[in-house]
Amino acid sequence: MSTEQFHVDEVSPSYWRVTFDNGPVNLLDPDTVEQLAVLVDRIEAAPDLTVVVFRSDTPGYFMAHWDFLSDTSRVVGMPLGPTGLHPYLDNFVRLSRVPVATISEIRGRTRGAGSEFVLATDIRLASERAVLGQFEVGVGAVPGGGPMARLGRLVGRGRALEILLGGEDVPAARAAEYGYVNRLVPDAELERVTDAFARRIAAFDKVAVAGIKQLVDVATLPADDELARGLDAYFATAGRPEHRPFVGLLLEHGLQRPDGVETDLGTAIGRLRQGS
Amino acid sequence: MSTEQFHVDEVSPSYWRVTFDNGPVNLLDPDTVEQLAVLVDRIEAAPDLTVVVFRSDTPGYFMAHWDFLSDTSRVVGMPLGPTGLHPYLDNFVRLSRVPVATISEIRGRTRGAGSEFVLATDIRLASERAVLGQFEVGVGAVPGGGPMARLGRLVGRGRALEILLGGEDVPAARAAEYGYVNRLVPDAELERVTDAFARRIAAFDKVAVAGIKQLVDVATLPADDELARGLDAYFATAGRPEHRPFVGLLLEHGLQRPDGVETDLGTAIGRLRQGS
Amino acid sequence: MSTEQFHVDEVSPSYWRVTFDNGPVNLLDPDTVEQLAVLVDRIEAAPDLTVVVFRSDTPGYFMAHWDFLSDTSRVVGMPLGPTGLHPYLDNFVRLSRVPVATISEIRGRTRGAGSEFVLATDIRLASERAVLGQFEVGVGAVPGGGPMARLGRLVGRGRALEILLGGEDVPAARAAEYGYVNRLVPDAELERVTDAFARRIAAFDKVAVAGIKQLVDVATLPADDELARGLDAYFATAGRPEHRPFVGLLLEHGLQRPDGVETDLGTAIGRLRQGS
Repeated sequence: MSTEQFHVDEVSPSYWRVTFDNGPVNLLDPDTVEQLAVLVDRIEAAPDLTVVVFRSDTPGYFMAHWDFLSDTSRVVGMPLGPTGLHPYLDNFVRLSRVPVATISEIRGRTRGAGSEFVLATDIRLASERAVLGQFEVGVGAVPGGGPMARLGRLVGRGRALEILLGGEDVPAARAAEYGYVNRLVPDAELERVTDAFARRIAAFDKVAVAGIKQLVDVATLPADDELARGLDAYFATAGRPEHRPFVGLLLEHGLQRPDGVETDLGTAIGRLRQGS
Repeated sequence: MSTEQFHVDEVSPSYWRVTFDNGPVNLLDPDTVEQLAVLVDRIEAAPDLTVVVFRSDTPGYFMAHWDFLSDTSRVVGMPLGPTGLHPYLDNFVRLSRVPVATISEIRGRTRGAGSEFVLATDIRLASERAVLGQFEVGVGAVPGGGPMARLGRLVGRGRALEILLGGEDVPAARAAEYGYVNRLVPDAELERVTDAFARRIAAFDKVAVAGIKQLVDVATLPADDELARGLDAYFATAGRPEHRPFVGLLLEHGLQRPDGVETDLGTAIGRLRQGS
Repeated sequence: MSTEQFHVDEVSPSYWRVTFDNGPVNLLDPDTVEQLAVLVDRIEAAPDLTVVVFRSDTPGYFMAHWDFLSDTSRVVGMPLGPTGLHPYLDNFVRLSRVPVATISEIRGRTRGAGSEFVLATDIRLASERAVLGQFEVGVGAVPGGGPMARLGRLVGRGRALEILLGGEDVPAARAAEYGYVNRLVPDAELERVTDAFARRIAAFDKVAVAGIKQLVDVATLPADDELARGLDAYFATAGRPEHRPFVGLLLEHGLQRPDGVETDLGTAIGRLRQGS
């Protein structure tokens, strides 16, 4: 088993602070899937927990995206999770339903699987240095972790289609305008504002937090099988042979490294696809 | 029977202006429930009515919240309303479906049950001196009048969870940014703008107003039983013995009086719960 | 058969640019319905198409609204479209589901049927000189092309009811604030920004574009029968004898001409209905 990617700081029995750390750009990979499943188990079972903050200390990156060099056969072969869904999706579905408030404290880039992760948390606070996006369309794939279902309901059809069919980088200000994140927080105050909001919820009764969230879930969450259709579409499109050469080109241009195309991935994909 | 809390000014057969008045902070109480049921009956039966404006002349308060000192056994024992729901919820459900445009003209605070009331009206115009919020989580309760169902659909999952799990005061500007209110209107123009908009609708055909609203209802209203689950959760949580001492502490600090903690209730609850 | 109202510029096999042109204010009429059906057939059948931009070169008007002087009996008698819906609605339903990104590049006024058209496209980019609106309530009618279903889901119940029951002109800035359009683009850059965004999508794989859109459809589109109820309500209300005199008055005041009441139709209707 590899090193833990999720560092859990149990600030108190009711408040955990989780820092994600996986290489220079915080990629998600098969280990992330297995370790996130364990973390969601822990959150589900913690009797007094009311709030969890997810964050990153990696300069420029919250969670870059899925690791294109990871072992696909390992991912495909993973046993199903407790919901009966593939564990990549099972993690996100279970995370969105934990009887606990979950907050993403977003500074830096979080695209693709990273965007899917923050969409599976409850509340997204973003510094003006946050960048979100679902660039998958640009590499010929349908995103697999639920953003059609989640963004469609969160920001409305028009803006969801712009984000998903355009695949552009979405800077924090536009993300806040669209409702992709809750709101902007000045970069220098991001930790302080998030921590104060979390400590507030940490002082509240779990029965109220869990009861409120359960009914917001009824009003807002997609059905599991709608999400399963998205993951099927991902495997069907991302697994095509036509998909590989362009990913190879992106890797040559610095994909998965902290500089190169990774810095402005949405823009770079458009430029490279258009051959200019 | 107590004095009428809803003063109805029948400006014309098609336009009514209703001013709410119940004590120094405009609390909702069992009399409010009974009187609102009568008012909704009247609105439903008015043949030419196309628009109703709800407003307050009480300085600083639109509707503070539910009266914590009211007779709970009287509320619990009320006979069910025409929809088969408890009358507290029945009023809001029927109000949201009247074949008439309903507008909340919001200046001052409207929290808890007051927020639930404005969410049951069609259109919310807010002066920059409006403050909304659902502070119930801070007193250990799940809100009972439908905000999980309504805010989840109105402002999206992320912002609904922030409002409901955080329980903070939501100033008018953020309420407009989130879609909790339709838009801001400069305080000095609130009556003029609301009245002009209402007079406009008052000149339109009832068959068009009613027909449009009925189809927006299909697209946007939650099912009655989703709302019923929320009221059940309220009674189960607000009725706990653990709930009472903190409400007592708030009453000592000026709850339900026009100054004291009532002015910044969301902030005050956070401070008192965190023991600082 | 009349002249083609939709001028199709096949920029490439993957990118079409369609300019609408029908008289001095771009009215929609029975010919529009028949020609749009043919165009949607073509879009559905184009094997490599991934993006279509809809636009207008008519000064001040994207699509004014339905032609009040058109032959109603011809419209009523039209054979049903492939979805089993009346072709007016069938066009919009099929357009919203084409496996292609559709973008409305909006400058000038687009009200009533014109607003319904842009709501049936995926993405709405608006210059600050765009004006949208559903004024039908002001002429005594329920809108027929789906805006109760679409706006209710796109901008939320409160803002949808304000737009539909108020029937006011919605300037571009408010349309962007409400999510009625995706966002504002500076007028001088509208063509350049829209074209760059379209060329980007034109470089992407059709399988990804179509697969993404299909799942956003699941999350966001209304059922066909909900739309059918709206068209029924339109025919029942717009066909009333009471409806005709006011339309006659509007025609006297310049309706369907590039100046007169057509310029500020929402405001003019309010003024004329209130008899001032």
